[in-house]
Amino acid sequence: MMGRSMHALLSRLYPICRSLTGEGVRRTLSILREYLPGLEIREASSGTSCLDWTVPREWNIRDAWVEDETGKKWVDFRQCNLHAVGYSAPVDAWLTPEELDACLYSLPEQPRAIPYVTSYYAPRWGFCVPHELREKMKKHPGRFHAVIDSELKQGSLTYGELALPGETDREVLLSTYICHPSMANDNLSGPVTMAFLARWLSERPRRLTYRALFIPETLGSIVYLSRHLEALKAKVVAGYVLTCCGDERAWSFLPSRAGNSLADRAARHVLSHHTPGWVEYSFLTRGSDERNWCAPGVDLPVASIMRSKYGTFPEYHTSLDDLSLVTDKGLSEALEVYKLCLEALEGNAVWRATRLGEPQLGKRGLYPTVSFAGSAEGWVRDMKNILAYSDGEHDLLSIAELVGAPFTRCLEIAEKLTAAGLLAYSSD
Amino acid sequence: MMGRSMHALLSRLYPICRSLTGEGVRRTLSILREYLPGLEIREASSGTSCLDWTVPREWNIRDAWVEDETGKKWVDFRQCNLHAVGYSAPVDAWLTPEELDACLYSLPEQPRAIPYVTSYYAPRWGFCVPHELREKMKKHPGRFHAVIDSELKQGSLTYGELALPGETDREVLLSTYICHPSMANDNLSGPVTMAFLARWLSERPRRLTYRALFIPETLGSIVYLSRHLEALKAKVVAGYVLTCCGDERAWSFLPSRAGNSLADRAARHVLSHHTPGWVEYSFLTRGSDERNWCAPGVDLPVASIMRSKYGTFPEYHTSLDDLSLVTDKGLSEALEVYKLCLEALEGNAVWRATRLGEPQLGKRGLYPTVSFAGSAEGWVRDMKNILAYSDGEHDLLSIAELVGAPFTRCLEIAEKLTAAGLLAYSSD
Amino acid sequence: MMGRSMHALLSRLYPICRSLTGEGVRRTLSILREYLPGLEIREASSGTSCLDWTVPREWNIRDAWVEDETGKKWVDFRQCNLHAVGYSAPVDAWLTPEELDACLYSLPEQPRAIPYVTSYYAPRWGFCVPHELREKMKKHPGRFHAVIDSELKQGSLTYGELALPGETDREVLLSTYICHPSMANDNLSGPVTMAFLARWLSERPRRLTYRALFIPETLGSIVYLSRHLEALKAKVVAGYVLTCCGDERAWSFLPSRAGNSLADRAARHVLSHHTPGWVEYSFLTRGSDERNWCAPGVDLPVASIMRSKYGTFPEYHTSLDDLSLVTDKGLSEALEVYKLCLEALEGNAVWRATRLGEPQLGKRGLYPTVSFAGSAEGWVRDMKNILAYSDGEHDLLSIAELVGAPFTRCLEIAEKLTAAGLLAYSSD
Repeated sequence: MMGRSMHALLSRLYPICRSLTGEGVRRTLSILREYLPGLEIREASSGTSCLDWTVPREWNIRDAWVEDETGKKWVDFRQCNLHAVGYSAPVDAWLTPEELDACLYSLPEQPRAIPYVTSYYAPRWGFCVPHELREKMKKHPGRFHAVIDSELKQGSLTYGELALPGETDREVLLSTYICHPSMANDNLSGPVTMAFLARWLSERPRRLTYRALFIPETLGSIVYLSRHLEALKAKVVAGYVLTCCGDERAWSFLPSRAGNSLADRAARHVLSHHTPGWVEYSFLTRGSDERNWCAPGVDLPVASIMRSKYGTFPEYHTSLDDLSLVTDKGLSEALEVYKLCLEALEGNAVWRATRLGEPQLGKRGLYPTVSFAGSAEGWVRDMKNILAYSDGEHDLLSIAELVGAPFTRCLEIAEKLTAAGLLAYSSD
Repeated sequence: MMGRSMHALLSRLYPICRSLTGEGVRRTLSILREYLPGLEIREASSGTSCLDWTVPREWNIRDAWVEDETGKKWVDFRQCNLHAVGYSAPVDAWLTPEELDACLYSLPEQPRAIPYVTSYYAPRWGFCVPHELREKMKKHPGRFHAVIDSELKQGSLTYGELALPGETDREVLLSTYICHPSMANDNLSGPVTMAFLARWLSERPRRLTYRALFIPETLGSIVYLSRHLEALKAKVVAGYVLTCCGDERAWSFLPSRAGNSLADRAARHVLSHHTPGWVEYSFLTRGSDERNWCAPGVDLPVASIMRSKYGTFPEYHTSLDDLSLVTDKGLSEALEVYKLCLEALEGNAVWRATRLGEPQLGKRGLYPTVSFAGSAEGWVRDMKNILAYSDGEHDLLSIAELVGAPFTRCLEIAEKLTAAGLLAYSSD
Repeated sequence: MMGRSMHALLSRLYPICRSLTGEGVRRTLSILREYLPGLEIREASSGTSCLDWTVPREWNIRDAWVEDETGKKWVDFRQCNLHAVGYSAPVDAWLTPEELDACLYSLPEQPRAIPYVTSYYAPRWGFCVPHELREKMKKHPGRFHAVIDSELKQGSLTYGELALPGETDREVLLSTYICHPSMANDNLSGPVTMAFLARWLSERPRRLTYRALFIPETLGSIVYLSRHLEALKAKVVAGYVLTCCGDERAWSFLPSRAGNSLADRAARHVLSHHTPGWVEYSFLTRGSDERNWCAPGVDLPVASIMRSKYGTFPEYHTSLDDLSLVTDKGLSEALEVYKLCLEALEGNAVWRATRLGEPQLGKRGLYPTVSFAGSAEGWVRDMKNILAYSDGEHDLLSIAELVGAPFTRCLEIAEKLTAAGLLAYSSD
């Protein structure tokens, strides 16, 4: 049910031509703000230096096509916005098929797919086409009229930021990107899942503070780091990059550079208990904003939970990554998995047993009064084990790992033991 | 031969009806004192607060039976003391079969076994019967006369303590329980093995001090902790709970909470070299007094070596755990394994090589004077390796693990090297 | 080609009768000095105390034989210098076959091989013979004339030392032994490989200092330690014992006692990338000078890379370990593997990324300007990963392990990134 609403939002965002900068990003953020009224829209002007980078000129595109001398359109941006290479310079020229071919991009091994290509930092124009079509265009006897009605101008890079304060200023960083044109798993599944996750967070009590960033990939995180590095380093205790989480294939996990941060531990725990068959990738194969969140000197504890990881699924960065690849079920499961992770972060803490030795559970109604073989199994055993490891050092997440039970069950037991006076909060 | 004496003691203790408190415990301790003249008998009065617990009233039972209107005894405590639920309140009542059935305990899956059931902390009475018999009793046309001639009174909990001082006050804690009625593997194998182990200890020179506790399970260790926690924490370097060690099935090991204490390391070493096929259980599956010895804030290094671990063998806590399950061979092997562990604790220390570089073994008669291929194998290789790791950091037990040789052999070599002036004692 | 020159040197050294002391060692060192003009020849007088040992008298042998009454030579030192037990006292006696047999050494399981036997520290004489021959000699009807024309006299132990200073005085210790008579894999492959390795080192710029020792095994390292322990402990950062590296069988690795020193890490890395099928032996099976370099209190980070490890190949310490077992190819491969290890030691360092976040590689020509699926693989991925782990803590060798790429490739990338100002040297 939630999946249907999520897919509806994704379908609404899908046709917009997003890029590193420009109106497509702004339109996307403005739709997301309908779901998240607190979402702040931020800008960084073209030419701004940020760390090692410079914000480029803003790019907008109105139309693009290739037509022949009869006026027949062979390539039409209005049919699919992947046709124009991202950040293409404007062009309006008649070219021979050979001349045009030098500006075409296609995938010989996926002859019907339109690839997704960008050229943010080198001036260039080009069209992305199915390889089948390219072959036909090569043989066309006449010339082609190539038009890209785009504009590169002084403008800005745009991103969205939502802060959800909690009881403490220990912060969870949620990051997703909003710079890809019409593709569904990579990457609209990310912002859609994050929008629903942030809305859920906004409606519940929060021990931790949450910061949700909807940014253009790579440069967005660089801009954000250039503005907020010290605050992030001081506050962030865990974080996730939300991307590629809308299909129904095997779950994937990409750890932080440190590999065993709180974010990693919560993610592995949740995946182990709730998504059989999940795969752990090496940090070496990272490809999204964890490249910056986890860079040396930044070192935030940011990991990523995905379904089909970027770069590994056949539809990746092509027109095949469409609305049918991402499903209601896939999106709602991603939301659930991320909720479980955040619940683990919220509930995790270090407790200390208040009694020396095993307490008398029976007199508190926590233990059967008749003792026989097997009477101390199940719930009772988990309760005793949670007591046994509540030594002021193990946090509940590590106890859940030891005990082999889902965090939610362990938290329920810990709360019951706390209510009975047998556990006391020790530290986060 | 030792096994036969051990089994004789076990058979003598078997008929006594032990419980958490009462005359059965005292009679058991008095027989054990024949073997261990230094055994001190201690008492804790009913009503004494100890940690989170309170010593309950003392329970004694003289007789119990169920008879029909013809005077035929259907259930007879004198045939098997498991028939009465432990700590049963007195009763003398005529009941319909349906009324009686509410106070019967049986095992549908083991229809001929009498289960072992207790109700120490909630007032209750009941009979434990074979499920087959229970089915027949249900169909009995007349009423039953249920009699339990028991008494709950102000009294005390009783336990035995034997201290065997050694050269140092670094202490080994040996703990076993004496609160189960007629069952052999769980638990008479424990006190019997401990009695013979303590007698052996009492007759040999001791570097370490030993403290052997014969206590009622759970509450006995709680009472002891409430009286001696600081001394235990200051002195105990290793310990074992002796239980379920009299049958001939696979060896089991239950580590301490810490998992790699000296007690754990010695036990794993001995089991690896002497009991092929042993199984290591998780501390999560503990069930005896290590629950208290290893609790947070107590944290003693106490492990347990068993044969068929409690809760895992079909006869567990039933009348089938009888004198035939425990054998002469099983008991004597348990004694041997525990002796090997204590010998490892006694012999373990850190040595330091006295010479820089490899010493000249040949001039001390420790090396063949003719050198050829293979002349440095076996004993010579072990000797060189023990020298190579005697760096003032590795203790001999860890060196034995590295070298892959039994501790006894390594100790013999270390003593030879010490006599030759090539090793010097560094620390415990 | 280099292999042919190496084998030529080996063949030239082969006939010399080396031992713990004596002219054979001096002649060997004098030939090696032709390759290494800086090689210094050192002596330690007979009777010198060094650590736990004493330098014995110097042994030289001119001839040795066993003849029968007809003057027929049954055993002739001039045919094979293994025939005389090393350090044999002089003898000139007529003996019955039974009397002589008590002084013969042979290998029943390798009936045609002459074993290598020594008796450095106990006065003794003897002949080593093929077991087949020994059987025939036993049945000889007449007496034998046994002559060993040897001399034990006040003299010295001789070794060679070559220091190759580098930019820093952090030192690499290369150690090989020169005390075996005519055997090729154990041990002439060691000094020959070391001679060529040292010559290569002498001709290249060196960041590190190298110390190459050609010593009699065991006592040579003891003598050296007795003279230079403090300097070695202060300076040596890695080292290798070169031995048994001239055949073509599987590569073997023997780690240092510490097991994860720089020498170990470099060796394992090089073997993993360049010698598939290599085998790691335990330090417990060591048998050469690492016994002293790695002894407690000395603890130098010295490992050993071999082909067929001493003690494990059938020809070991017999006349079968001859010029045909060691090949041009085997020797040149050993040289290459050791060069790769030293290159790793030379190139290894800790770098630190100079930019916060991932730097903009594209503007430096280090990244494709068009971005599409797969454009960040291969070299680009390795570059980003080297940046990601250059955190001032990981050295390049550990990064190469993480990245899974050969050190040489990682070094090339690190140098390119340094040239681009993206990495800065942090520490060794």
